[in-house]
Amino acid sequence: MTDAVEVVARLAAELGDRVDVSFDARRAARADKSGHAAAGIPVAVVHAGSVEDVQATLRVATATGTPVVTRGAGTGLAGAANAGDGEIALSVRGMDRILEVRPDDLIAVVEPGILNADLNAALAPQGLWWAPDPASRAISTVGGNIATGAGGLLCAKYGVVRDAVLGVDVVLADGRLLRLGHRTVKGVTGLDLTSLMIGSEGTLGVIVGATLKLRRTVPGEVCTIAATFPAVRDAATASAAVTASGVQPAIMELMDAASLAAVHAHLGLTAPTPGASQLTIQTDGISAAADAEAIGRMLADAGGTVAVTRDPMEGERLLAVRRAMHPAMERLGTTLIEDVSVPRSALPAMFDEIARVEREYGLPIPTVAHAGDGNLHPNFVFDASPDASGVVEVPPVVWRAADALFRAALALGGTLTGEHGVGVLKSRWLADELGDDQWEIQRQITRVFDPDGILNPGKVFAR
Amino acid sequence: MTDAVEVVARLAAELGDRVDVSFDARRAARADKSGHAAAGIPVAVVHAGSVEDVQATLRVATATGTPVVTRGAGTGLAGAANAGDGEIALSVRGMDRILEVRPDDLIAVVEPGILNADLNAALAPQGLWWAPDPASRAISTVGGNIATGAGGLLCAKYGVVRDAVLGVDVVLADGRLLRLGHRTVKGVTGLDLTSLMIGSEGTLGVIVGATLKLRRTVPGEVCTIAATFPAVRDAATASAAVTASGVQPAIMELMDAASLAAVHAHLGLTAPTPGASQLTIQTDGISAAADAEAIGRMLADAGGTVAVTRDPMEGERLLAVRRAMHPAMERLGTTLIEDVSVPRSALPAMFDEIARVEREYGLPIPTVAHAGDGNLHPNFVFDASPDASGVVEVPPVVWRAADALFRAALALGGTLTGEHGVGVLKSRWLADELGDDQWEIQRQITRVFDPDGILNPGKVFAR
Repeated sequence: MTDAVEVVARLAAELGDRVDVSFDARRAARADKSGHAAAGIPVAVVHAGSVEDVQATLRVATATGTPVVTRGAGTGLAGAANAGDGEIALSVRGMDRILEVRPDDLIAVVEPGILNADLNAALAPQGLWWAPDPASRAISTVGGNIATGAGGLLCAKYGVVRDAVLGVDVVLADGRLLRLGHRTVKGVTGLDLTSLMIGSEGTLGVIVGATLKLRRTVPGEVCTIAATFPAVRDAATASAAVTASGVQPAIMELMDAASLAAVHAHLGLTAPTPGASQLTIQTDGISAAADAEAIGRMLADAGGTVAVTRDPMEGERLLAVRRAMHPAMERLGTTLIEDVSVPRSALPAMFDEIARVEREYGLPIPTVAHAGDGNLHPNFVFDASPDASGVVEVPPVVWRAADALFRAALALGGTLTGEHGVGVLKSRWLADELGDDQWEIQRQITRVFDPDGILNPGKVFAR
Repeated sequence: MTDAVEVVARLAAELGDRVDVSFDARRAARADKSGHAAAGIPVAVVHAGSVEDVQATLRVATATGTPVVTRGAGTGLAGAANAGDGEIALSVRGMDRILEVRPDDLIAVVEPGILNADLNAALAPQGLWWAPDPASRAISTVGGNIATGAGGLLCAKYGVVRDAVLGVDVVLADGRLLRLGHRTVKGVTGLDLTSLMIGSEGTLGVIVGATLKLRRTVPGEVCTIAATFPAVRDAATASAAVTASGVQPAIMELMDAASLAAVHAHLGLTAPTPGASQLTIQTDGISAAADAEAIGRMLADAGGTVAVTRDPMEGERLLAVRRAMHPAMERLGTTLIEDVSVPRSALPAMFDEIARVEREYGLPIPTVAHAGDGNLHPNFVFDASPDASGVVEVPPVVWRAADALFRAALALGGTLTGEHGVGVLKSRWLADELGDDQWEIQRQITRVFDPDGILNPGKVFAR
């Protein structure tokens, strides 16, 4: 371990003014959108502008035994990109070029720092899009989407990130560059290391480029359905019925009463009926109108008060309520956002479990769900003042309630994290889901890529 | 290393009559559908009937240092399942139960030995199907599909195996059972070991169960288009134009003149026009007829002689010509089937390269292609008599021509193997595509799962 001054000097010798030691930059690199921050403060932020910059940074890190925390836009929700004491924060946000778009082959080659929304804005005039659509798409990077295995609203119909990436370029801990995957629809040459990188949260290498699988813009219109239900269980049961019916919505979002009320307050809208939960559904494609009509009937039969619109502006307005969930929660206090996922048929049962945990621990848990794919975001909101080092402590009762919630999801055939990743906030439960044998094998795989353990130590595989 | 007699005795003590030492069974386990066989003969074939049988086999293998070659139906085309001297052939073909089907969650849980076609026959009455559709679907197993990352005819529209598997249960070399993946649409808990198992060709563990992602039966009709072209390059150019147009066929298969003639002879059909190549295309879904009409026009504009049918029987008859390619080649002699894949826009250029290799090496190379996804199967057919140990030697000129073909595909942005895997037949080129650094990392990952190197040694990572 070399001291911080020496590490900074070596970085500066290699990277010049790409090395930022300003207090503001270093402080910003301590936190992500989870509201949680690392203990202490990183020694420097490197603003990489090229693959060579990333390689140079990692060579210095390896030579000096310094941990490296890779960051994109810092919109993660599990603390995986938070850099703390004695660490280098390596930002690839500035590597944001689109290197190639091939409409005939339906691929694009991009740098990791490009924003999801900027990529799709550039693709749209060519009638193309990249399907991954996290709620943070306006502010999150493609590299971050890949590194966390980010999900979003469209996954049930259009797949997860794993389905939309053909290859990645990765810089290893020692600075070597690997090109993983391929440019072809099919390819099975050796082990699928591209998939292994997706969701690896900075523990295996630094993603410096990606070959993306594009889709053509879906023809036809978009219809939007909003339905309110007297209780959240009714909304969950209705969404499971839609899934079971075989009509495939593009988006199906559920907001419980507490979420709906908080967002309405945040946006300055008229308060919803007390206790009311809402489903917001979009259909697309050439059968959008017929699908919307069929879904509307199902929701009405399930006891919902239903409104259907074919007007895109009105549809976006309805969906904006759902998209405002995260800022609405931020306004209420510090949030621990859970991210459990369950089989879709288990959604009503999972809402029962959330209600049980609320009662048992005396905590309100406003919850939204990507009901189309079974992914729920129960939000624990609490008042917390940062300690002397700026770290927010999650109250023990919140951890206990989160633990109960997670065990309930597992018992229903679910998983700890559907799309946010493990980071620091969920690492304590990782072995519970994986089992000790798999946990150990996964940790050993990280050592193949990173023998000295300098890539994002203390994240994911800490326990 | 324990001697063969002792290994058999220990297996028999654990597994009783599941251990088959008959000469016929052991001889059959030496070969797959590639036409190539392992040197020598395995010590025994274990017909596993349960997860516990697999675990017991692997415990004996580890205790005695005996290599294990896992087999399903033996329909592989790269020799990965061929078992030879001193090895245990572990057949999971008998583990063929469907354990669970959940139409509401669109998942099925199956054992690995079930045939692809049998699974889909069982799913069809529920309006469900599993999309992976290798040409061998009537005789290949789901476990084999997963272990090789098998592709098929529908991949451009309906995805590859990686897109259709949510989780796998795996027995490690030492007999421990791991449950990888999840039952949910989304799930990013730790590294994606499920994807790592897909296409790992028996080098990481034995797949003993799988959670499959199902689709609902596609509504609407199926239309079939057959078009003949005077030269293969014209057919390839036409197929690339269809892809670039944005109309998405379910199936788009290309047969060159030599393939078409061979299959017509094999099936006893009237010989095709000399030199003629054929595209066989199917459209499906509610826009099937409109898509077929649009494609028909494109093909006619590209110089094709086009026939379109909405009759399912007639469509199957047209497609049967393509499906008979493998048996037709088998009739001609021993075959080395290449499996390169290129970006779809590069298909015409790849056919030019095949013609060049034919000229330079003086070999006919009948070729079919999954033109919808850019995956080509150039077939090297040769006369070869097995040597004293039953091994067929590929003539050196064939290896040299295959080498030239592979390098051409790589230069076009392609890959060595789109769907057959590496096995023994393509391992000599693996490092050429991966690079030495990635090859070594992949090999080290196999050692995490299999520290003693008893799982399918000499396959994939041999060089």
